[in-house]
Amino acid sequence: MSEKQVSASVIRRLPRYYRFLGMLAENGIQRISSGELSAKMGLTASQIRQDLNCFGGFGQQGYGYNVAALREEIGKILGLSLPKKTILIGAGNLGRAILAHMAFAEKGFSIVGIFDRDEGFAGERLEGVAIQHTDALEEFCRKEKPSVAILCVPKMASQDMVRRLVDLGIKGFWNFSHYDIGVHYPDVAVENVHLGDSLMTLCYEMQALENQKGRE
Amino acid sequence: MSEKQVSASVIRRLPRYYRFLGMLAENGIQRISSGELSAKMGLTASQIRQDLNCFGGFGQQGYGYNVAALREEIGKILGLSLPKKTILIGAGNLGRAILAHMAFAEKGFSIVGIFDRDEGFAGERLEGVAIQHTDALEEFCRKEKPSVAILCVPKMASQDMVRRLVDLGIKGFWNFSHYDIGVHYPDVAVENVHLGDSLMTLCYEMQALENQKGRE
Repeated sequence: MSEKQVSASVIRRLPRYYRFLGMLAENGIQRISSGELSAKMGLTASQIRQDLNCFGGFGQQGYGYNVAALREEIGKILGLSLPKKTILIGAGNLGRAILAHMAFAEKGFSIVGIFDRDEGFAGERLEGVAIQHTDALEEFCRKEKPSVAILCVPKMASQDMVRRLVDLGIKGFWNFSHYDIGVHYPDVAVENVHLGDSLMTLCYEMQALENQKGRE
Repeated sequence: MSEKQVSASVIRRLPRYYRFLGMLAENGIQRISSGELSAKMGLTASQIRQDLNCFGGFGQQGYGYNVAALREEIGKILGLSLPKKTILIGAGNLGRAILAHMAFAEKGFSIVGIFDRDEGFAGERLEGVAIQHTDALEEFCRKEKPSVAILCVPKMASQDMVRRLVDLGIKGFWNFSHYDIGVHYPDVAVENVHLGDSLMTLCYEMQALENQKGRE
Protein backbone atom coordinates (compact mmCIF):
# COMPACT_ATOMS: atom_id res chain seq x y z
CA MET A 1 0.00 0.00 0.00
CA SER A 2 1.26 3.43 -0.88
CA GLU A 3 2.69 5.49 1.94
CA LYS A 4 2.83 8.76 0.05
CA GLN A 5 0.22 11.45 0.39
CA VAL A 6 -2.52 11.07 -2.15
CA SER A 7 -4.72 14.05 -2.90
CA ALA A 8 -8.29 14.03 -1.64
CA SER A 9 -9.65 14.39 -5.17
CA VAL A 10 -7.89 11.21 -6.32
CA ILE A 11 -9.24 9.35 -3.28
CA ARG A 12 -12.72 10.63 -4.18
CA ARG A 13 -12.45 9.08 -7.62
CA LEU A 14 -11.23 5.65 -6.45
CA PRO A 15 -14.68 4.34 -5.43
CA ARG A 16 -15.91 5.26 -8.87
CA TYR A 17 -13.09 3.34 -10.55
CA TYR A 18 -13.85 0.41 -8.27
CA ARG A 19 -17.52 0.53 -9.22
CA PHE A 20 -16.83 0.76 -12.96
CA LEU A 21 -14.30 -2.05 -12.90
CA GLY A 22 -16.85 -4.19 -11.04
CA MET A 23 -19.39 -3.62 -13.82
CA LEU A 24 -16.84 -4.45 -16.49
CA ALA A 25 -15.91 -7.67 -14.65
CA GLU A 26 -19.61 -8.58 -14.38
CA ASN A 27 -19.90 -8.14 -18.14
CA GLY A 28 -16.98 -10.51 -18.69
CA ILE A 29 -14.48 -7.84 -19.75
CA GLN A 30 -10.97 -8.84 -18.71
CA ARG A 31 -8.86 -5.91 -19.85
CA ILE A 32 -9.40 -2.31 -20.83
CA SER A 33 -7.31 0.58 -22.12
CA SER A 34 -7.23 3.95 -20.39
CA GLY A 35 -8.89 5.33 -23.54
CA GLU A 36 -11.88 2.98 -23.29
CA LEU A 37 -12.14 3.53 -19.55
CA SER A 38 -12.10 7.30 -20.08
CA ALA A 39 -14.95 7.16 -22.62
CA LYS A 40 -17.08 5.15 -20.18
CA MET A 41 -16.29 7.33 -17.19
CA GLY A 42 -16.28 10.80 -18.70
CA LEU A 43 -12.69 11.49 -17.61
CA THR A 44 -9.71 12.06 -19.90
CA ALA A 45 -7.36 9.12 -20.52
CA SER A 46 -4.44 11.10 -19.16
CA GLN A 47 -6.40 11.85 -15.97
CA ILE A 48 -6.98 8.14 -15.50
CA ARG A 49 -3.32 7.26 -16.09
CA GLN A 50 -2.28 9.99 -13.66
CA ASP A 51 -4.72 8.84 -10.98
CA LEU A 52 -3.70 5.21 -11.17
CA ASN A 53 0.00 6.10 -11.28
CA CYS A 54 -0.40 7.62 -7.81
CA PHE A 55 -0.61 4.06 -6.54
CA GLY A 56 2.14 2.60 -8.64
CA GLY A 57 0.73 2.26 -12.18
CA PHE A 58 -1.07 -0.97 -12.94
CA GLY A 59 -1.28 -0.65 -16.72
CA GLN A 60 1.02 -2.18 -19.29
CA GLN A 61 1.84 -0.30 -22.47
CA GLY A 62 -0.14 -1.74 -25.39
CA TYR A 63 -2.09 -4.11 -23.18
CA GLY A 64 -4.13 -1.83 -20.98
CA TYR A 65 -5.36 -2.66 -17.51
CA ASN A 66 -6.22 -6.10 -16.19
CA VAL A 67 -9.74 -5.41 -14.90
CA ALA A 68 -9.83 -7.93 -12.04
CA ALA A 69 -6.32 -7.19 -10.80
CA LEU A 70 -6.81 -3.43 -10.92
CA ARG A 71 -10.13 -3.72 -9.11
CA GLU A 72 -8.62 -5.88 -6.40
CA GLU A 73 -5.74 -3.46 -5.96
CA ILE A 74 -8.07 -0.45 -5.65
CA GLY A 75 -10.17 -2.40 -3.15
CA LYS A 76 -7.02 -2.93 -1.07
CA ILE A 77 -6.09 0.75 -1.28
CA LEU A 78 -9.60 1.67 -0.16
CA GLY A 79 -9.31 -0.79 2.73
CA LEU A 80 -12.55 -2.59 1.86
CA SER A 81 -11.28 -5.80 3.45
CA LEU A 82 -10.52 -4.10 6.77
CA PRO A 83 -13.19 -5.52 9.11
CA LYS A 84 -15.29 -2.78 10.69
CA LYS A 85 -17.84 -3.52 13.41
CA THR A 86 -20.57 -0.99 12.79
CA ILE A 87 -23.58 0.31 14.68
CA LEU A 88 -26.57 2.23 13.34
CA ILE A 89 -27.82 5.10 15.49
CA GLY A 90 -31.39 6.02 14.60
CA ALA A 91 -33.84 3.46 13.22
CA GLY A 92 -36.24 5.90 11.57
CA ASN A 93 -37.11 6.00 7.87
CA LEU A 94 -33.66 7.03 6.75
CA GLY A 95 -31.76 4.54 8.92
CA ARG A 96 -33.98 1.71 7.73
CA ALA A 97 -33.62 2.65 4.08
CA ILE A 98 -29.84 2.79 4.35
CA LEU A 99 -29.71 -0.56 6.11
CA ALA A 100 -31.93 -2.20 3.49
CA HIS A 101 -30.26 -0.51 0.55
CA MET A 102 -26.52 -0.82 1.12
CA ALA A 103 -24.20 -3.76 0.57
CA PHE A 104 -22.26 -3.24 3.81
CA ALA A 105 -20.68 -6.68 4.08
CA GLU A 106 -18.82 -6.47 0.76
CA LYS A 107 -17.06 -3.32 1.99
CA GLY A 108 -16.03 -4.89 5.30
CA PHE A 109 -18.75 -3.31 7.45
CA SER A 110 -20.66 -5.72 9.70
CA ILE A 111 -23.75 -4.27 11.36
CA VAL A 112 -23.54 -5.50 14.96
CA GLY A 113 -26.01 -3.20 16.69
CA ILE A 114 -28.93 -0.84 16.02
CA PHE A 115 -29.97 1.82 18.53
CA ASP A 116 -32.87 4.24 18.81
CA ARG A 117 -34.17 6.34 21.66
CA ASP A 118 -37.75 5.42 20.72
CA GLU A 119 -38.73 2.62 23.13
CA GLY A 120 -41.46 1.54 20.73
CA PHE A 121 -38.83 0.04 18.40
CA ALA A 122 -37.18 -2.09 21.09
CA GLY A 123 -36.95 -5.75 20.14
CA GLU A 124 -37.84 -5.19 16.49
CA ARG A 125 -35.26 -6.69 14.11
CA LEU A 126 -33.83 -5.08 10.95
CA GLU A 127 -31.73 -7.26 8.64
CA GLY A 128 -31.54 -9.77 11.47
CA VAL A 129 -30.25 -7.33 14.11
CA ALA A 130 -32.42 -6.34 17.10
CA ILE A 131 -33.09 -2.64 17.76
CA GLN A 132 -31.99 -1.64 21.27
CA HIS A 133 -32.66 1.47 23.30
CA THR A 134 -29.81 4.01 23.26
CA ASP A 135 -29.48 3.52 27.04
CA ALA A 136 -27.85 0.18 26.23
CA LEU A 137 -25.07 1.81 24.15
CA GLU A 138 -22.40 2.00 26.84
CA GLU A 139 -22.62 -1.63 27.89
CA PHE A 140 -22.85 -2.81 24.29
CA CYS A 141 -19.85 -0.83 23.07
CA ARG A 142 -17.64 -1.92 25.97
CA LYS A 143 -18.39 -5.52 25.11
CA GLU A 144 -18.52 -5.45 21.28
CA LYS A 145 -16.07 -2.62 20.60
CA PRO A 146 -17.60 -1.33 17.35
CA SER A 147 -15.40 1.13 15.44
CA VAL A 148 -17.92 2.75 13.08
CA ALA A 149 -21.25 4.49 13.67
CA ILE A 150 -23.85 5.34 11.03
CA LEU A 151 -25.49 8.46 12.37
CA CYS A 152 -29.13 8.89 11.31
CA VAL A 153 -30.46 11.12 14.08
CA PRO A 154 -31.63 14.75 13.99
CA LYS A 155 -28.99 17.46 14.38
CA MET A 156 -30.30 18.42 17.83
CA ALA A 157 -29.62 14.94 19.20
CA SER A 158 -26.31 14.52 17.35
CA GLN A 159 -24.01 16.67 19.44
CA ASP A 160 -24.44 14.68 22.67
CA MET A 161 -24.59 11.38 20.80
CA VAL A 162 -21.30 11.99 18.98
CA ARG A 163 -19.56 12.90 22.24
CA ARG A 164 -20.82 9.66 23.79
CA LEU A 165 -19.78 7.59 20.79
CA VAL A 166 -16.28 9.08 20.60
CA ASP A 167 -15.85 8.36 24.33
CA LEU A 168 -16.95 4.77 23.62
CA GLY A 169 -14.20 4.33 21.05
CA ILE A 170 -15.97 5.01 17.75
CA LYS A 171 -13.29 5.96 15.20
CA GLY A 172 -15.39 6.56 12.11
CA PHE A 173 -18.74 8.17 11.37
CA TRP A 174 -20.95 7.85 8.32
CA ASN A 175 -22.81 11.01 9.07
CA PHE A 176 -26.32 11.68 7.76
CA SER A 177 -27.03 14.27 10.44
CA HIS A 178 -26.39 17.98 9.93
CA TYR A 179 -23.96 18.13 12.83
CA ASP A 180 -20.44 18.95 11.60
CA ILE A 181 -18.52 16.25 13.46
CA GLY A 182 -15.17 16.96 11.81
CA VAL A 183 -15.03 20.54 13.10
CA HIS A 184 -15.30 19.29 16.70
CA TYR A 185 -13.46 15.97 16.48
CA PRO A 186 -10.56 16.29 14.04
CA ASP A 187 -9.13 12.88 15.06
CA VAL A 188 -11.97 10.67 13.87
CA ALA A 189 -12.77 9.72 10.29
CA VAL A 190 -15.97 11.35 9.06
CA GLU A 191 -17.78 10.95 5.79
CA ASN A 192 -20.74 13.31 5.53
CA VAL A 193 -23.82 12.68 3.45
CA HIS A 194 -25.57 16.02 3.36
CA LEU A 195 -28.62 15.27 1.26
CA GLY A 196 -29.94 18.80 1.70
CA ASP A 197 -26.72 20.30 0.37
CA SER A 198 -26.86 17.99 -2.61
CA LEU A 199 -30.42 19.07 -3.35
CA MET A 200 -29.45 22.75 -3.12
CA THR A 201 -26.58 22.14 -5.53
CA LEU A 202 -29.12 20.71 -7.97
CA CYS A 203 -31.15 23.92 -7.55
CA TYR A 204 -28.10 25.91 -8.57
CA GLU A 205 -27.43 23.73 -11.59
CA MET A 206 -31.06 23.95 -12.73
CA GLN A 207 -30.93 27.71 -12.47
CA ALA A 208 -27.61 27.91 -14.31
CA LEU A 209 -29.22 25.85 -17.09
CA GLU A 210 -32.19 28.25 -17.21
CA ASN A 211 -29.89 31.27 -17.37
CA GLN A 212 -27.83 29.69 -20.12
CA LYS A 213 -30.97 28.98 -22.15
CA GLY A 214 -32.07 32.57 -21.61
CA ARG A 215 -28.81 33.88 -23.06
CA GLU A 216 -28.85 31.66 -26.14
CA MET B 1 -27.26 37.36 -9.86
CA SER B 2 -23.65 36.97 -10.85
CA GLU B 3 -22.92 36.27 -14.49
CA LYS B 4 -19.29 35.38 -14.05
CA GLN B 5 -18.07 31.81 -13.83
CA VAL B 6 -17.89 30.59 -10.27
CA SER B 7 -15.76 27.57 -9.51
CA ALA B 8 -17.49 24.29 -8.68
CA SER B 9 -15.83 24.14 -5.27
CA VAL B 10 -17.29 27.51 -4.26
CA ILE B 11 -20.73 26.35 -5.42
CA ARG B 12 -20.29 23.17 -3.35
CA ARG B 13 -19.73 25.28 -0.23
CA LEU B 14 -22.73 27.59 -0.73
CA PRO B 15 -25.34 25.13 0.63
CA ARG B 16 -23.20 24.75 3.74
CA TYR B 17 -23.09 28.53 4.24
CA TYR B 18 -26.82 28.63 3.72
CA ARG B 19 -27.35 25.88 6.31
CA PHE B 20 -25.06 27.54 8.87
CA LEU B 21 -26.62 30.95 8.44
CA GLY B 22 -30.05 29.35 8.92
CA MET B 23 -28.93 27.90 12.25
CA LEU B 24 -27.51 31.24 13.35
CA ALA B 25 -30.77 32.98 12.43
CA GLU B 26 -32.74 30.34 14.37
CA ASN B 27 -30.57 31.11 17.39
CA GLY B 28 -31.36 34.80 17.10
CA ILE B 29 -27.91 35.84 15.86
CA GLN B 30 -28.20 38.87 13.56
CA ARG B 31 -24.63 39.49 12.49
CA ILE B 32 -21.37 37.58 12.42
CA SER B 33 -17.76 38.26 11.47
CA SER B 34 -15.87 36.10 8.99
CA GLY B 35 -13.64 35.08 11.93
CA GLU B 36 -16.57 33.75 13.98
CA LEU B 37 -18.09 32.07 10.94
CA SER B 38 -14.75 30.42 10.16
CA ALA B 39 -14.43 28.99 13.68
CA LYS B 40 -17.90 27.49 13.43
CA MET B 41 -17.44 26.08 9.94
CA GLY B 42 -13.85 24.87 10.06
CA LEU B 43 -12.79 27.09 7.14
CA THR B 44 -10.29 29.95 7.29
CA ALA B 45 -11.65 33.48 7.54
CA SER B 46 -9.85 34.44 4.33
CA GLN B 47 -11.43 31.48 2.54
CA ILE B 48 -14.86 32.68 3.62
CA ARG B 49 -14.19 36.26 2.51
CA GLN B 50 -12.89 34.99 -0.81
CA ASP B 51 -15.91 32.72 -1.37
CA LEU B 52 -18.45 35.40 -0.60
CA ASN B 53 -16.58 37.98 -2.66
CA CYS B 54 -17.21 35.80 -5.71
CA PHE B 55 -20.79 36.98 -5.53
CA GLY B 56 -20.11 40.60 -4.77
CA GLY B 57 -19.03 40.74 -1.10
CA PHE B 58 -21.81 41.11 1.45
CA GLY B 59 -19.69 42.03 4.48
CA GLN B 60 -18.96 45.45 5.87
CA GLN B 61 -15.59 46.22 7.42
CA GLY B 62 -15.87 46.24 11.23
CA TYR B 63 -19.50 45.13 11.18
CA GLY B 64 -19.35 41.65 9.71
CA TYR B 65 -22.13 39.97 7.81
CA ASN B 66 -25.84 40.55 8.27
CA VAL B 67 -26.99 36.96 8.80
CA ALA B 68 -30.50 37.23 7.36
CA ALA B 69 -29.47 39.31 4.34
CA LEU B 70 -26.50 37.08 3.50
CA ARG B 71 -28.64 33.95 3.82
CA GLU B 72 -31.32 35.40 1.56
CA GLU B 73 -28.72 36.39 -1.02
CA ILE B 74 -27.13 32.92 -1.02
CA GLY B 75 -30.59 31.40 -1.35
CA LYS B 76 -31.14 33.54 -4.45
CA ILE B 77 -27.78 32.54 -5.92
CA LEU B 78 -28.65 28.88 -5.33
CA GLY B 79 -32.01 29.41 -7.00
CA LEU B 80 -34.00 27.98 -4.11
CA SER B 81 -37.03 30.08 -5.02
CA LEU B 82 -37.11 28.82 -8.62
CA PRO B 83 -40.25 26.61 -8.70
CA LYS B 84 -39.45 23.04 -9.76
CA LYS B 85 -42.17 20.47 -10.41
CA THR B 86 -40.62 17.22 -9.32
CA ILE B 87 -41.42 13.52 -9.72
CA LEU B 88 -40.07 10.59 -7.73
CA ILE B 89 -39.22 7.48 -9.71
CA GLY B 90 -39.06 4.40 -7.47
CA ALA B 91 -41.17 4.14 -4.31
CA GLY B 92 -39.07 1.51 -2.53
CA ASN B 93 -37.36 1.94 0.82
CA LEU B 94 -34.94 4.57 -0.37
CA GLY B 95 -37.49 6.64 -2.28
CA ARG B 96 -39.85 6.64 0.69
CA ALA B 97 -37.11 7.63 3.13
CA ILE B 98 -36.02 10.53 0.95
CA LEU B 99 -39.58 11.72 0.54
CA ALA B 100 -40.24 11.58 4.29
CA HIS B 101 -36.88 13.05 5.25
CA MET B 102 -36.32 16.02 2.99
CA ALA B 103 -37.73 19.53 3.17
CA PHE B 104 -38.39 19.81 -0.57
CA ALA B 105 -40.83 22.71 -0.49
CA GLU B 106 -38.44 25.17 1.16
CA LYS B 107 -35.99 24.63 -1.71
CA GLY B 108 -38.64 25.20 -4.39
CA PHE B 109 -39.26 21.53 -5.24
CA SER B 110 -42.90 20.47 -5.31
CA ILE B 111 -43.50 16.72 -5.52
CA VAL B 112 -46.25 16.36 -8.12
CA GLY B 113 -45.99 12.65 -8.97
CA ILE B 114 -44.62 9.33 -7.70
CA PHE B 115 -44.04 6.39 -10.02
CA ASP B 116 -43.09 2.75 -9.54
CA ARG B 117 -43.22 -0.27 -11.82
CA ASP B 118 -44.55 -2.39 -8.95
CA GLU B 119 -48.32 -2.56 -9.49
CA GLY B 120 -48.78 -3.45 -5.82
CA PHE B 121 -48.05 0.16 -4.84
CA ALA B 122 -50.66 1.69 -7.17
CA GLY B 123 -53.05 4.00 -5.38
CA GLU B 124 -50.99 4.15 -2.16
CA ARG B 125 -50.25 7.72 -1.10
CA LEU B 126 -46.92 9.10 0.18
CA GLU B 127 -46.89 12.60 1.65
CA GLY B 128 -50.30 13.11 0.09
CA VAL B 129 -49.28 12.10 -3.45
CA ALA B 130 -50.62 8.91 -5.06
CA ILE B 131 -48.18 6.33 -6.41
CA GLN B 132 -48.83 5.59 -10.09
CA HIS B 133 -47.55 2.87 -12.38
CA THR B 134 -44.62 3.91 -14.58
CA ASP B 135 -46.83 3.22 -17.62
CA ALA B 136 -48.63 6.45 -16.77
CA LEU B 137 -45.44 8.56 -17.02
CA GLU B 138 -45.86 9.77 -20.60
CA GLU B 139 -49.38 11.06 -20.17
CA PHE B 140 -48.60 12.59 -16.79
CA CYS B 141 -45.48 14.44 -17.98
CA ARG B 142 -47.19 15.83 -21.09
CA LYS B 143 -49.88 17.27 -18.88
CA GLU B 144 -47.94 18.37 -15.77
CA LYS B 145 -44.56 19.17 -17.36
CA PRO B 146 -42.32 18.33 -14.37
CA SER B 147 -38.72 19.49 -14.76
CA VAL B 148 -36.95 17.41 -12.08
CA ALA B 149 -36.83 13.67 -11.40
CA ILE B 150 -35.57 11.99 -8.24
CA LEU B 151 -34.21 8.68 -9.46
CA CYS B 152 -34.41 5.86 -6.90
CA VAL B 153 -34.40 2.80 -9.14
CA PRO B 154 -31.75 0.10 -9.61
CA LYS B 155 -28.98 0.77 -12.12
CA MET B 156 -30.34 -1.86 -14.53
CA ALA B 157 -33.64 -0.02 -14.87
CA SER B 158 -32.07 3.44 -14.94
CA GLN B 159 -30.70 3.57 -18.46
CA ASP B 160 -34.08 3.17 -20.20
CA MET B 161 -35.84 5.27 -17.59
CA VAL B 162 -33.47 8.22 -18.01
CA ARG B 163 -33.86 8.14 -21.80
CA ARG B 164 -37.65 8.22 -21.36
CA LEU B 165 -37.50 11.05 -18.84
CA VAL B 166 -35.15 13.20 -20.94
CA ASP B 167 -37.50 12.71 -23.91
CA LEU B 168 -40.36 13.81 -21.66
CA GLY B 169 -38.62 17.08 -20.85
CA ILE B 170 -36.92 16.37 -17.52
CA LYS B 171 -34.08 18.87 -17.13
CA GLY B 172 -32.61 17.88 -13.78
CA PHE B 173 -31.95 14.60 -12.00
CA TRP B 174 -31.32 13.95 -8.34
CA ASN B 175 -29.68 10.63 -9.00
CA PHE B 176 -29.52 7.89 -6.37
CA SER B 177 -28.97 5.18 -8.96
CA HIS B 178 -25.53 4.04 -10.06
CA TYR B 179 -26.15 5.00 -13.66
CA ASP B 180 -23.83 7.82 -14.73
CA ILE B 181 -26.39 10.12 -16.33
CA GLY B 182 -23.99 13.00 -16.94
CA VAL B 183 -21.71 10.93 -19.17
CA HIS B 184 -24.62 10.18 -21.54
CA TYR B 185 -26.66 13.39 -21.23
CA PRO B 186 -24.31 16.36 -20.87
CA ASP B 187 -27.15 18.87 -21.33
CA VAL B 188 -29.19 18.04 -18.24
CA ALA B 189 -28.36 19.02 -14.66
CA VAL B 190 -27.38 16.01 -12.57
CA GLU B 191 -26.59 15.77 -8.90
CA ASN B 192 -25.41 12.31 -7.94
CA VAL B 193 -25.77 10.80 -4.50
CA HIS B 194 -23.53 7.76 -4.62
CA LEU B 195 -23.97 6.34 -1.15
CA GLY B 196 -21.72 3.37 -1.95
CA ASP B 197 -18.87 5.66 -3.00
CA SER B 198 -19.28 7.64 0.20
CA LEU B 199 -19.09 4.46 2.26
CA MET B 200 -15.94 3.36 0.42
CA THR B 201 -14.35 6.74 1.10
CA LEU B 202 -15.04 6.17 4.79
CA CYS B 203 -13.24 2.80 4.46
CA TYR B 204 -10.21 4.60 3.10
CA GLU B 205 -10.24 7.19 5.86
CA MET B 206 -10.57 4.51 8.55
CA GLN B 207 -7.61 2.66 7.08
CA ALA B 208 -5.53 5.83 6.81
CA LEU B 209 -6.27 6.43 10.51
CA GLU B 210 -5.14 2.87 11.36
CA ASN B 211 -1.93 3.27 9.36
CA GLN B 212 -1.20 6.61 11.02
CA LYS B 213 -1.69 5.07 14.46
CA GLY B 214 0.62 2.21 13.47
CA ARG B 215 3.36 4.65 12.54
CA GLU B 216 3.12 6.69 15.75
